[in-house]
Amino acid sequence: MKRVYLDNAATTSTAPEVLEAMKPYFTEKFGNASSVHSFGRENRNVVEDAREKVADLINADDSAEIVFTSGGTEADNLAIKGIAMKHRDEGKHIITSACEHHAVLHPCEYLEEYHDFEVTYVPVDEHGMVDQKDVEKAITDETILISVMMANNEVGTIQPIKEIGKIAKENNIYFHTDAVQAVGAISVDVNELNADLLSLSAHKFNGPKGIGALYIRKGTKITPFMHGGAQERGRRASTENVPAIVGLGKAAKVALEELEEKQEKITKLRGKLIKGIKEKIDEVTLNGHPTKRLPNNVNFSIRYIEGESLLLNLDLEGIAASSGSACTSGSLDPSHVLLAMDIPHEIAHGSLRLTLGKYTTEEEIDYVLEKLPKVVDKLRAMSPLYDQNS
Amino acid sequence: MKRVYLDNAATTSTAPEVLEAMKPYFTEKFGNASSVHSFGRENRNVVEDAREKVADLINADDSAEIVFTSGGTEADNLAIKGIAMKHRDEGKHIITSACEHHAVLHPCEYLEEYHDFEVTYVPVDEHGMVDQKDVEKAITDETILISVMMANNEVGTIQPIKEIGKIAKENNIYFHTDAVQAVGAISVDVNELNADLLSLSAHKFNGPKGIGALYIRKGTKITPFMHGGAQERGRRASTENVPAIVGLGKAAKVALEELEEKQEKITKLRGKLIKGIKEKIDEVTLNGHPTKRLPNNVNFSIRYIEGESLLLNLDLEGIAASSGSACTSGSLDPSHVLLAMDIPHEIAHGSLRLTLGKYTTEEEIDYVLEKLPKVVDKLRAMSPLYDQNS
Repeated sequence: MKRVYLDNAATTSTAPEVLEAMKPYFTEKFGNASSVHSFGRENRNVVEDAREKVADLINADDSAEIVFTSGGTEADNLAIKGIAMKHRDEGKHIITSACEHHAVLHPCEYLEEYHDFEVTYVPVDEHGMVDQKDVEKAITDETILISVMMANNEVGTIQPIKEIGKIAKENNIYFHTDAVQAVGAISVDVNELNADLLSLSAHKFNGPKGIGALYIRKGTKITPFMHGGAQERGRRASTENVPAIVGLGKAAKVALEELEEKQEKITKLRGKLIKGIKEKIDEVTLNGHPTKRLPNNVNFSIRYIEGESLLLNLDLEGIAASSGSACTSGSLDPSHVLLAMDIPHEIAHGSLRLTLGKYTTEEEIDYVLEKLPKVVDKLRAMSPLYDQNS
Repeated sequence: MKRVYLDNAATTSTAPEVLEAMKPYFTEKFGNASSVHSFGRENRNVVEDAREKVADLINADDSAEIVFTSGGTEADNLAIKGIAMKHRDEGKHIITSACEHHAVLHPCEYLEEYHDFEVTYVPVDEHGMVDQKDVEKAITDETILISVMMANNEVGTIQPIKEIGKIAKENNIYFHTDAVQAVGAISVDVNELNADLLSLSAHKFNGPKGIGALYIRKGTKITPFMHGGAQERGRRASTENVPAIVGLGKAAKVALEELEEKQEKITKLRGKLIKGIKEKIDEVTLNGHPTKRLPNNVNFSIRYIEGESLLLNLDLEGIAASSGSACTSGSLDPSHVLLAMDIPHEIAHGSLRLTLGKYTTEEEIDYVLEKLPKVVDKLRAMSPLYDQNS
């Protein structure tokens, strides 16, 4: 059966050239990068080389500002808990947004529950957009951290990070942005964004799973999250995951080289997909910002059908899609992102996210545009609600 | 040049069959294991299959008691901070030992500094052995956790875990053991040990880096460490690292199958190495327990020479060894383990750890026994201290 993968926001395949780069570090070159002997030294060099490549991808001044983590979730935990624990004597107030990933929201809730922090969750508009004025208004004398994601994982909306970063800087508040969906997809520059901390994850841009990084601007002090050995200049204990770090480095290099070309190709295919869905299916709404959105993100609410049934029926046609974040699948609650955008429960339940990747082809888009309307018709035919309205 | 790797306590090479098992999950089968579509489902199955294999290796009753982590350090952090944060209202006292890995000691220090915990560090004897009576004496009404490692990473001493586990159980205190060096090297049975929590790491037994697991006995409640998505039944957020999990599963299966044979082979080679060093080099002391030690561990103090010079000169002969933990290399302080064993500073500085692995050959041991005495002679010839004594 034909299989079309349109869930690249959940994860991407590791590019063949990335896997090739990683392979030697499992077997011949397997040393512990912290060991003093030659097996260790040869790996220390490749770790530092990968660090440079990650720094280049986000335009960091110094590769020492990059700390490798086990992924985006750990990077977010390190940023938020790391700043909170280190600077808790300066204030216990954090500002974030209602549409963050759970890897930001849940650390914030942990700090509220366990450490008496107060967290302001600024609202988003109907497009999932944060208004920087709301962030500015939320600042108190106690505010030590602002964390707003660069681009939303469900609806793709790109936030005014530069402006929020500027507000944070003017008010002397640390600024973190979860850029897990943005890095590798659009141009990201930590200096332009005024970011003190920025999270990224390799498997979102054709690198391996299990590796990510936190950018920590020089001079930004944090309490480590993972305690133990002296790795990563004391900022993250645990044996360096050399093969995965090499893979992240390679993926970062490729992403930077291909960025413009990939953006252009994917934006075009996405345009075709959005246009096609609007033409072929009635009563659909594009979720997220119409223009300020990730090049690869399509998210529709399709009325009178239930997201789960839609996904299963698409799956039977070989199409891999999602209703929202893979991190919350299994939960029957509608997406907190769509609810924050004031989309009613019953419509939020019918959301469909299709996210394109570097290997997506026009033929695949055509296939989806052929199958999706039929699946929707079939499901709506079974829906008493749709009948009443047709 | 010949290269002999005798630093298997720091890390091991990924076995070829383990890498083979992992490969498809980077490329064709790359789905997010939490996704509902077929790309996700096929990976969810292999994750659960790997979980069974890890459970089998440590004789856990139920694979649901296994939580995958990014390695041994994260498993230790999750165990210690997880129990501490969840049960802090029941008491704020932890008992551990002076010779634990930093992945246990530093989380304990974090809890002392940030959460007003009190930690008792029970001493060890001259062999690095904890006395269970010291553990028992340290118990107070406030004690909520005992954490003692199964086998020491530097000197290989195997602790009386079964007895300590029994004491913990009788006193209704959670018991964690860092079994990172033990799992895959000797037989480990969570029920026999009375362990409520047990840490393990794949790259210590020819699995990949960046993956480990924490065994959490059914009914043991912990506060998650990594906050975010709902993965691992809400006990550890972050996209499942499928290729690494598959690698850990495969390594666990192989380790269980080969355990007896490997133990026998390595113990014999280790015996030859210890005997040879004692015969060929004067004024050496075997550190750690003479019999209750890991089959692969050799640790000598070699008087009148400095550990760092020894390692560098062995490296020039192609021999990879270490003076202690790779996690602390770069530090000039002598090993906290050797100091806890009351070995004087100047002798602790001259320690040499040689750790064998499944691929170590007799020829390699012969090579070391030929080169090491010459290197020691050369270094001692330059030492004014040795001249005075010879």
